[in-house]
Amino acid sequence: LPTAEQFDRLTVVLVSTRNPLNIGAAARAMSNFGFLRLRVVTPYEVAFREARSAVGAAEVLKNAEECASVAEAVADCTLVVGTTAAGHRDLLEPLQELGQAAPLIHREMQSGRVALLFGSEKRGLTKREMSHCHMLLRIPTREEHLSMNLGQAVAVCLYEIARHTREREVPMERAKERATAVEVERMSGVLLQTLKASGYVNDPAPAEIEERVRRLLLRMDMRSSDVEIWLGMLRQVGWKLLKSSKKADPSSQN
Amino acid sequence: LPTAEQFDRLTVVLVSTRNPLNIGAAARAMSNFGFLRLRVVTPYEVAFREARSAVGAAEVLKNAEECASVAEAVADCTLVVGTTAAGHRDLLEPLQELGQAAPLIHREMQSGRVALLFGSEKRGLTKREMSHCHMLLRIPTREEHLSMNLGQAVAVCLYEIARHTREREVPMERAKERATAVEVERMSGVLLQTLKASGYVNDPAPAEIEERVRRLLLRMDMRSSDVEIWLGMLRQVGWKLLKSSKKADPSSQN
Repeated sequence: LPTAEQFDRLTVVLVSTRNPLNIGAAARAMSNFGFLRLRVVTPYEVAFREARSAVGAAEVLKNAEECASVAEAVADCTLVVGTTAAGHRDLLEPLQELGQAAPLIHREMQSGRVALLFGSEKRGLTKREMSHCHMLLRIPTREEHLSMNLGQAVAVCLYEIARHTREREVPMERAKERATAVEVERMSGVLLQTLKASGYVNDPAPAEIEERVRRLLLRMDMRSSDVEIWLGMLRQVGWKLLKSSKKADPSSQN
Repeated sequence: LPTAEQFDRLTVVLVSTRNPLNIGAAARAMSNFGFLRLRVVTPYEVAFREARSAVGAAEVLKNAEECASVAEAVADCTLVVGTTAAGHRDLLEPLQELGQAAPLIHREMQSGRVALLFGSEKRGLTKREMSHCHMLLRIPTREEHLSMNLGQAVAVCLYEIARHTREREVPMERAKERATAVEVERMSGVLLQTLKASGYVNDPAPAEIEERVRRLLLRMDMRSSDVEIWLGMLRQVGWKLLKSSKKADPSSQN
């Protein structure tokens, strides 16, 4: 793929950014390195398009999409990567350093779509936001000063991802066609239904359980076609559970 | 040399910086990556030490040295490297991309001292300032948008220089603990039982189906601990299916 087309496969997602200056700085770095797709999830100030300090980033800001949730922002992506300064909380997703994550991201851009998430300046990504991620990456910073400025973190990540394209590595095996976030979310929903019907989890399931199921599925790194197989199996199992329980308790058929 | 001592051999020199916020941002990136020596040449505002936005960079700013000229700022250095967005003027010094310059800088830090110069936000380094440089480096940015924000440029350069030191250290994350074949086989068996109980596959299942289920699970490349989770879920679902079908058809209880 030509570089521009590859780079179009990466979407930068800014989640709950508080300061419009930082959105502008992120957009500028995106424009510098040639990644032009920006989505913002519930920014603190809606007037982010007026972000100053965004020299030359007008196009990125103009075309930026506003999303109501992380799920919406990553829906069409086959690889979702969160960024974290780490160390300050137990992480439930696999963590890679930027230098190790970049080749994976680069490879996925050959055939799929990648979302790269940055959390709010103050807290970073929440546990729940991270539960949408296949993996997390951290920029290797000094123990004594882990947390980077948002615009600088975006610049460093995009530099490193672009580097792998520029260096024209040996062609890698064609990446398998990975499931999109929407497909994984669908399987997650059907699996939860089945688990409720079986009594394995309560109905309604606590948010914590939902997140655990999502993370379990994301860790499995599935193909689209395998999600289809799972959906078929789970639906049959769920249907059977429902039917059996109705037969067992005929009064419920009203 | 230990990393900290090596990094002490690099001095960041900000020349004629106009905006104290940018000095603060540069100092923060320096602190993030562990390069603590900053010199400023005739900044536009002398009150640069009060630079806001310099979260955690107090130490760097406090120890920063003010110099009256580039010559003074680079006096003790054995390799002087200027940064440029290039393209807009004829360059007289040899130009390298950051990825090529970083190993040279890294090598010099083993024994000598390196100065890394950044020019003013508006004009970059002047011809005269460049004349103090052994070589120039540019961050590879897009033709249509070459010029980076100062703080972001500093962050990207220092990230790349630090990378060459880090890559000699052991990788930080060990591979995830992958499930053994025996564990996958166990899950495969329990999944098949569940599918039979649900009517999704015949009982006994044809060998072909067994193989398909095994391949499905192997493609998912699971951790040991995730297999345990799946086993728990599948056993509950299977138990419920069995119990329900017995209730629905009491005659089968003989």
